[in-house]
Amino acid sequence: MDLIEISCLLRDKCLLDPQKPIVVGVSGGPDSLCLLHLLHRLGYTVIAGHVNHQLRETAGHDEEQVKEVCRQWGIPLEIERVDVRSFAQNSHFSLEEGARILRYRSLMQFAAAHSAQALAVAHQADDQSETMLMHLLRGSGMSGLKGMQYRSFNPAFSLDIPIVRPLLQVSRTEIEAYCAENSIEFCQDETNSETKYFRNRIRHELIPVLENYNPQVRLHLEQTGQILAEENRFLEEAAQRAQKQVLLRQGEGFFLLSRERFLKLDIVLQRRILRNWMIELRGEIRDISFSVVEAGLSFAGEKNPVLVKPLLKSLFLASGEGQNLLLYREDADLGDLWPWLSEPSLPWRLSDEKVNLSRHWQIRCEIFAPGEITFDRDPQVACFDADSLSEQFELMPPAPGDRFAPFGMNGREMKVGDYFTNQHIPLLARGHWPILRAEGRVLWVAGLRQAEFARVSESTRRILKLSLLKID
Amino acid sequence: MDLIEISCLLRDKCLLDPQKPIVVGVSGGPDSLCLLHLLHRLGYTVIAGHVNHQLRETAGHDEEQVKEVCRQWGIPLEIERVDVRSFAQNSHFSLEEGARILRYRSLMQFAAAHSAQALAVAHQADDQSETMLMHLLRGSGMSGLKGMQYRSFNPAFSLDIPIVRPLLQVSRTEIEAYCAENSIEFCQDETNSETKYFRNRIRHELIPVLENYNPQVRLHLEQTGQILAEENRFLEEAAQRAQKQVLLRQGEGFFLLSRERFLKLDIVLQRRILRNWMIELRGEIRDISFSVVEAGLSFAGEKNPVLVKPLLKSLFLASGEGQNLLLYREDADLGDLWPWLSEPSLPWRLSDEKVNLSRHWQIRCEIFAPGEITFDRDPQVACFDADSLSEQFELMPPAPGDRFAPFGMNGREMKVGDYFTNQHIPLLARGHWPILRAEGRVLWVAGLRQAEFARVSESTRRILKLSLLKID
Repeated sequence: MDLIEISCLLRDKCLLDPQKPIVVGVSGGPDSLCLLHLLHRLGYTVIAGHVNHQLRETAGHDEEQVKEVCRQWGIPLEIERVDVRSFAQNSHFSLEEGARILRYRSLMQFAAAHSAQALAVAHQADDQSETMLMHLLRGSGMSGLKGMQYRSFNPAFSLDIPIVRPLLQVSRTEIEAYCAENSIEFCQDETNSETKYFRNRIRHELIPVLENYNPQVRLHLEQTGQILAEENRFLEEAAQRAQKQVLLRQGEGFFLLSRERFLKLDIVLQRRILRNWMIELRGEIRDISFSVVEAGLSFAGEKNPVLVKPLLKSLFLASGEGQNLLLYREDADLGDLWPWLSEPSLPWRLSDEKVNLSRHWQIRCEIFAPGEITFDRDPQVACFDADSLSEQFELMPPAPGDRFAPFGMNGREMKVGDYFTNQHIPLLARGHWPILRAEGRVLWVAGLRQAEFARVSESTRRILKLSLLKID
Repeated sequence: MDLIEISCLLRDKCLLDPQKPIVVGVSGGPDSLCLLHLLHRLGYTVIAGHVNHQLRETAGHDEEQVKEVCRQWGIPLEIERVDVRSFAQNSHFSLEEGARILRYRSLMQFAAAHSAQALAVAHQADDQSETMLMHLLRGSGMSGLKGMQYRSFNPAFSLDIPIVRPLLQVSRTEIEAYCAENSIEFCQDETNSETKYFRNRIRHELIPVLENYNPQVRLHLEQTGQILAEENRFLEEAAQRAQKQVLLRQGEGFFLLSRERFLKLDIVLQRRILRNWMIELRGEIRDISFSVVEAGLSFAGEKNPVLVKPLLKSLFLASGEGQNLLLYREDADLGDLWPWLSEPSLPWRLSDEKVNLSRHWQIRCEIFAPGEITFDRDPQVACFDADSLSEQFELMPPAPGDRFAPFGMNGREMKVGDYFTNQHIPLLARGHWPILRAEGRVLWVAGLRQAEFARVSESTRRILKLSLLKID
């Protein structure tokens, strides 16, 4: 291993400052102990961080080993024990993915507690090429082929503490030689996880086969990985900028975007945006396959799309109001977007001051004498002749076959469903749209149009004013 | 094969118009005959194009077979015989690469002659995944991993006729089934070229191994290829735009670029720009490896770069004048950039009206009486007291140890080399810089500064005016 080269790389690629603390993730294996030793030796201020996954019998021994090494080298050590098994079970992650999440979470907590400039982890060159092949074989497509970077951010764990990987171009052989030279006593790497097993097959079976085709294949994979990692970052930055342009509203479990602006984007950005949002809504990358993303793109591009397209279990894309698209999870809080009635039926009386439809929506009721109010065309407001109405009302979503005579159309009746269609109200929104009824008659499609019935006239003595309010 | 799907793809992805002619590249193998049959059957106006490489014994038979099929189907056919062997020999291309170049060249000529809307070629899904693996193994890095696209342009062959690949998602098995169903009699594919051999090994040995890891590996490679092809196009478009921003001057065998603007670009764009220009200067992609491009990037980023960095045999990067960078080939016409003296020595007499330094540069000589001219500070012009000079002059590049007293510095002498350094004249330019001498004395560093010697004074009767001119 070339110490000069590593020194330059720490400064120029990892952007590390020798004066500021760095937390180093230390499993106890050769890679992480080599990294810890190197940084310490080159004068960096290091704090070791060990996360005990409590998965294997040797976990306790590894922890002791790390303690002993840090004591010998005089390096402060933080230890956290995590319960991977129950976390994985509750969150439906694999043990391996669960362990990864808890590990990074703890290490980042150490880093934050020490005001560290970075979290250093010990991925090396062989990891890089094996990971690329693994992703290629598993078909993780876009995100898979990119290699790891010397310095990057993982927003899932920290927005401001970078993850650095100084050993990315050092091979396993070089690391083992370094450990031997410096008498570093490391633990044996764990080999029982599913990925480790797959990775081991790649390392011991597949790479030798590929080396028959080209002895330089490892080097080529590393170089390709480095380029793709940077190109991926560049594309991701472009996608982030484009995301801001197309996003109209983001809420719990949904993204509402401008279909028109989305379709004007390059397909490369469309694909990444859709994929990013799908991952964000699902909370994980699993199942967001090539064909799921393509199905979303194809729906977005259709001239006469069906109203809702299921993309995955509990993930949908819908053509929203007007020229919009709505990407949402089954449990999305769509009441954030449209007037929303949570209950199947909600009775109220003329004397009630207000009625809550859902956590976002409320109807306020006031009685005025003629001359006390002026009328405007605000669709959020409806005014009736209170004396033409009964005292009992009901709020319900539209029922099949509902009809009403919209105000100002000379009493001509139409289906509420057709009215929604004319107003470009998405199907999704209709199922919970609050409709005010009295004595079986539709009085008000809340927020859109009141019925002709019980309209305020010159003989009206008491005016009932209803206002639909959004509470943000 | 799903004819509906292919029809949509021809319209939506290949953007083909059934009314306008298409030239189809037809080797006589199953893929190309299948493509020809399909397009013909779906009502497209097709012209078959066959290029006889005259490499194999069966070449004549293949040509006859294509003729016979086209006659039967009533499709017009263009045939061209090319001499791959001598072309490859003269241009130092491999036989295979030479054949590819001549083939596309001829097919594009057919396409232009028929005012075709596109050239259709028969790459299919297996080609896509095999090509990706081949590139991955060979380490062609950036350009390699990207797959082929349904519709793309290859500027080497045509700027305005696109190449379309309608079969990109059809497998070899489907094509064979189609040929059998439609009784298409095809020739056996050639298998003797180096790539075919490598490709065959990948097809018959490697892919089955990879399928042990994941039975879906072919599909994953295809999907990854499709995404990478589009992302590559996006990045290439960004690089083309950035290229225009950094390019200061382009000439025969060189690119002069603004180092400052170049370094402000994302490394992803820097890498692609440098690589594109290297390929353009070399005329081919061979040898433009990862490490060559990285060496160029690292030179560009150095604070105190050496003056010239050899990147490849006959390809150099130099820090140019001021904050510029010069990428050039050994035989570049750098006289396009700086005053340039082609000869090692060029004598002339006071009576000569002009003297040609190189194809870009000339010195014009005039004699004036005092009062006939005004003096300005134009460094392209030097004025001397003609009577203080001999009749014999010589133009030479600077010799080691050359000194002169620059005009206006009270006769203080300095080395010509130091003067160049002060003026930020790149080393590259100095070797051919025209220096005017008389009787062993430096009179004029042409285009920069004349010497104090023989300056025009009040007693001057004849003024010798020399003007350095660039002839574009």
